[in-house]
Amino acid sequence: MKLLHDKIMQEGKVLSSSVLKVDSFLNHQIDPLLMKEIGHEFANRFADQVITKILTIESSGIAPSVMLGLEIGAPVVFARKRKSLTLSDNLYTSKVHSFTKNETNDISVSRNFLSEDDNILIVDDFLANGEAVKGLLDIAAQAGAHVVGVGIVIEKGFQDGGKLLREQGVRVESLAIVDSLEDGKVTFATEARA
Amino acid sequence: MKLLHDKIMQEGKVLSSSVLKVDSFLNHQIDPLLMKEIGHEFANRFADQVITKILTIESSGIAPSVMLGLEIGAPVVFARKRKSLTLSDNLYTSKVHSFTKNETNDISVSRNFLSEDDNILIVDDFLANGEAVKGLLDIAAQAGAHVVGVGIVIEKGFQDGGKLLREQGVRVESLAIVDSLEDGKVTFATEARA
Repeated sequence: MKLLHDKIMQEGKVLSSSVLKVDSFLNHQIDPLLMKEIGHEFANRFADQVITKILTIESSGIAPSVMLGLEIGAPVVFARKRKSLTLSDNLYTSKVHSFTKNETNDISVSRNFLSEDDNILIVDDFLANGEAVKGLLDIAAQAGAHVVGVGIVIEKGFQDGGKLLREQGVRVESLAIVDSLEDGKVTFATEARA
Repeated sequence: MKLLHDKIMQEGKVLSSSVLKVDSFLNHQIDPLLMKEIGHEFANRFADQVITKILTIESSGIAPSVMLGLEIGAPVVFARKRKSLTLSDNLYTSKVHSFTKNETNDISVSRNFLSEDDNILIVDDFLANGEAVKGLLDIAAQAGAHVVGVGIVIEKGFQDGGKLLREQGVRVESLAIVDSLEDGKVTFATEARA
């Protein structure tokens, strides 16, 4: 997705050979127009699928998910990272380890909002080791729902989450795949692969 | 805002005389079309103001903020509730106590995204005791930014956050003001007050 590639080249900051900071437009400050275009691109890539619900995780997955939901007319459900006292015990839960934050969180979704009748598209901002997506797939499986695929804004192609998911037969569509952050420079995967 | 009032009456669940659960459309499952209408209504209410940045807090403030940002062409910045290792130390921070979750969080915003040149609209999903808004006002003050007002989706009029903010001269626009949750029933403030 050219607009996203351009934005990453202009504003992304390479903090190390594994950390790309995009907090000026995606996960701290948010560019709403870019989110709309990202939602539109996800809608195009999964246009062959019936999607009844978009499943994401707080917080940075919410903005692109809501724009996609507006375009295709589907509600968004975001998994919470900690239990809230106003959520009942009626939950699907899974565990997600964040290597960036070096902590494991319980994630949870109310049983009221996912069921075996749902065709779910999972959306998230980043795909690295695939921990968050695995947790969301687990929750979808607990609900007995069908997962049509996974939409990712930025995949770190040099980490193995995308490879593992695709090997399991999960359809993963990443709008930008970063192949390397070596020498302080962002290198994207070729379009053929992306 | 009639659409929002209707949605609260149809789907809101009164859990006690102080807790209204709206997790089917606002803070767990999200109705994207309603979020768009909410963003549109905020844009109308603050149409007399120049807004350079929308400031909210993760997670439930993000969806309405992004829809507003899309309409008025302004970026959204969401305060984080915990420090992330990929955020630098270059932060504005404040403390927010959540009575619902019975915990105090540090909230933080990167100094890169708020400055004295900004005209900020603060947006959040709920206003009860006003703790979150006070933390966001503190962060805006640290940045030396001008705050044009506060846009709230649902204000609990029977708690004192809205009153305290208005007494301080802060312009607060709430799209629904709930005056009472007694007897398991939602009663809205009169339109004149809302």
